[in-house]
Amino acid sequence: MRNFEYCNRTKIIFGRGTEDLAGAETAKYAGKDGTFRILLHHSGGSAVKTGLLDRVKKSLKEAGVGWVELSGVQPNPRLSKVYEGIELVRKEKLGFILAVGGGSVIDSAKAIALGALYDGDVWDFYDRKKEAAEALPVATVLTIPAAGSESSISSVITNEKGSWKRGVNAECSRPVFSILNPELTYTLPPYQTACGVADMLAHIMERYFTKEPHVELTDELCEGAMRAIIRNARKIFSGGERDYDARAEIMWAGSLAHNNLLSTGRVGDWASHGIEHELSALFDIAHGAGLSIIFPAWIKYNIGEDTSRFARFAAKVWGVDGAFYDLEQAAMEGVFRLKNFFRSIGLPVSFAGAKLDVSKIPEMSKRAVTFGPLGNYRKLDEKDVQAIFRIASEE
Amino acid sequence: MRNFEYCNRTKIIFGRGTEDLAGAETAKYAGKDGTFRILLHHSGGSAVKTGLLDRVKKSLKEAGVGWVELSGVQPNPRLSKVYEGIELVRKEKLGFILAVGGGSVIDSAKAIALGALYDGDVWDFYDRKKEAAEALPVATVLTIPAAGSESSISSVITNEKGSWKRGVNAECSRPVFSILNPELTYTLPPYQTACGVADMLAHIMERYFTKEPHVELTDELCEGAMRAIIRNARKIFSGGERDYDARAEIMWAGSLAHNNLLSTGRVGDWASHGIEHELSALFDIAHGAGLSIIFPAWIKYNIGEDTSRFARFAAKVWGVDGAFYDLEQAAMEGVFRLKNFFRSIGLPVSFAGAKLDVSKIPEMSKRAVTFGPLGNYRKLDEKDVQAIFRIASEE
Repeated sequence: MRNFEYCNRTKIIFGRGTEDLAGAETAKYAGKDGTFRILLHHSGGSAVKTGLLDRVKKSLKEAGVGWVELSGVQPNPRLSKVYEGIELVRKEKLGFILAVGGGSVIDSAKAIALGALYDGDVWDFYDRKKEAAEALPVATVLTIPAAGSESSISSVITNEKGSWKRGVNAECSRPVFSILNPELTYTLPPYQTACGVADMLAHIMERYFTKEPHVELTDELCEGAMRAIIRNARKIFSGGERDYDARAEIMWAGSLAHNNLLSTGRVGDWASHGIEHELSALFDIAHGAGLSIIFPAWIKYNIGEDTSRFARFAAKVWGVDGAFYDLEQAAMEGVFRLKNFFRSIGLPVSFAGAKLDVSKIPEMSKRAVTFGPLGNYRKLDEKDVQAIFRIASEE
Repeated sequence: MRNFEYCNRTKIIFGRGTEDLAGAETAKYAGKDGTFRILLHHSGGSAVKTGLLDRVKKSLKEAGVGWVELSGVQPNPRLSKVYEGIELVRKEKLGFILAVGGGSVIDSAKAIALGALYDGDVWDFYDRKKEAAEALPVATVLTIPAAGSESSISSVITNEKGSWKRGVNAECSRPVFSILNPELTYTLPPYQTACGVADMLAHIMERYFTKEPHVELTDELCEGAMRAIIRNARKIFSGGERDYDARAEIMWAGSLAHNNLLSTGRVGDWASHGIEHELSALFDIAHGAGLSIIFPAWIKYNIGEDTSRFARFAAKVWGVDGAFYDLEQAAMEGVFRLKNFFRSIGLPVSFAGAKLDVSKIPEMSKRAVTFGPLGNYRKLDEKDVQAIFRIASEE
């Protein structure tokens, strides 16, 4: 087990009706002068339609919190919108950002929070030219369990100029509080629920596939969380769209998957995320759908690297009976079941399944390693990435 | 799943050699005037002998942090020592408390931190006459993985006048940082290691035995953590006293067992802790040894209440094959294995095993319910507590 530091300061407020607490919780961050105005950031889509945004506004009003709205965040959130937010925050002298939405809105809010206190171009942080050291406080009302951004230090932004999709990790941008009401996820389109499930499973798998020996406690926690996600996703996709408890398990698992507890003492891989970013930057498909294509291919490519770890994954997460197979067969059976699970909830598991153009593979492979080889489990260069894309092009 | 709030702000600094970071980390809490003196609280025992205290002092000195020492904390920490600490903090105008030791030292430090900022008697908080709202910052260098006090809001103090042992939960007393170096636990006497293991298992069992339906994710996390504790305790007790990784799994598990993540969405029971407090208050035995006597008896007494939960505990934690037993037999087999495990690491599982006087049972049963019935899984009155003590008196 490696030395580590662990601290997660995000206050999670979880359960039915909790969006009504947004105002009172936000008001705690008001300055001493009494007047307090925030940036209310959202997509302008479902949060408006479902009435959630109105409830949040009512709650803010009751708590004496004023706001300026910025809507229009898109999936794979754009840098141009971030610039717009930074300008608005400065012009209106706003001191706090409340994101109402999914990971895209939250990531956009974090980027605005970082950029608002920085004199240069906020893209510097994403382009690794500058370390982020301060940010406005960000809080969230989460509507899509997926990215885990509600309690993480990560933010991923797409720069339209050149289709670059890049992430930054900054402790100062970790949300101060996040409100998670599973009821808000009843009306998610099934495809979005499925993409979220793939994203949170991928967050755990990135941490789970490590060569660090003796990480037994976190192995157990990772495996338990993955089993709970798989079982409850099956419930939701078997007519349980409005099953509060299944939605609640998935929503809380999405946060835990990415709050770094499951990385303690180990080093994660993150190559699959890096490879996927090229897919969703170029084709603008959902991040979760990109992961359901890439991750099984990454496992297949690496199975010889430490077969027993992949066999353990098959046994503990997918119930493959190791006793009846050799390790490699057991490991392959695990990939088979992972792909089958993704298919069963309506996700693509290949380029063909998502109608992606395989001719872009060489270009994407080159771009993926812009900052050097990807991953920790095994360092992947351009040739390796290309091989993984090729495996992912087969159903 | 219940609505919940979850936030744990303690920064965990985990691994080899991390005690050397104590000074630099403490210095972050210095006031602006530059001078900074803290209370350095310890037992005067093993931390002195092993040289740990000297290393911590060196680290404080290098970071420019001054200190006043208060040693002499005993197991089941005493209120008289807390009063001494409060007086010292006030006289010397100390603004921070660093506890070097196990749960007793940390709990004593928390009590001093609460009392230092309160005009009345600090016992008011423990006697439930007053809610604790503010405290001096507390930090820890942990030497005994057991109580989880290093990242919890709890503190348990024994009032010698009348042998009252009472706990308080106060967010303001949660340590700001805790340093956990598994190497520091190599030299623990086996009995203390065993008591710690019983304590952390009990912290998880208190949370695990709930009637709250649909807490699948936290069930998985609890079961995984218990399995990891049991396996790694066995390693330590099979010649692995200096097995870094086994010690590390146990140490991190001790914190996670009590940092409230494993309670999210559910209500814990805590009757066994309440009953045990009477044992260790009256007989001054280690808390963990009291728990290894009481918890199996509590399970036996309650097995009819929700047999399937106890059978699940037997199956998932102890590997009992439910298919070959009826539920009650499976559940009883779980208790049998729990007791056997405790015995195998040298802990008592009955009054006789710890040479405790059964004639005190009526008195202890009465005192246990001073504030009303105990527990949530099933409310226990004096008669119930007495019955549990009776079961615990049989080997």
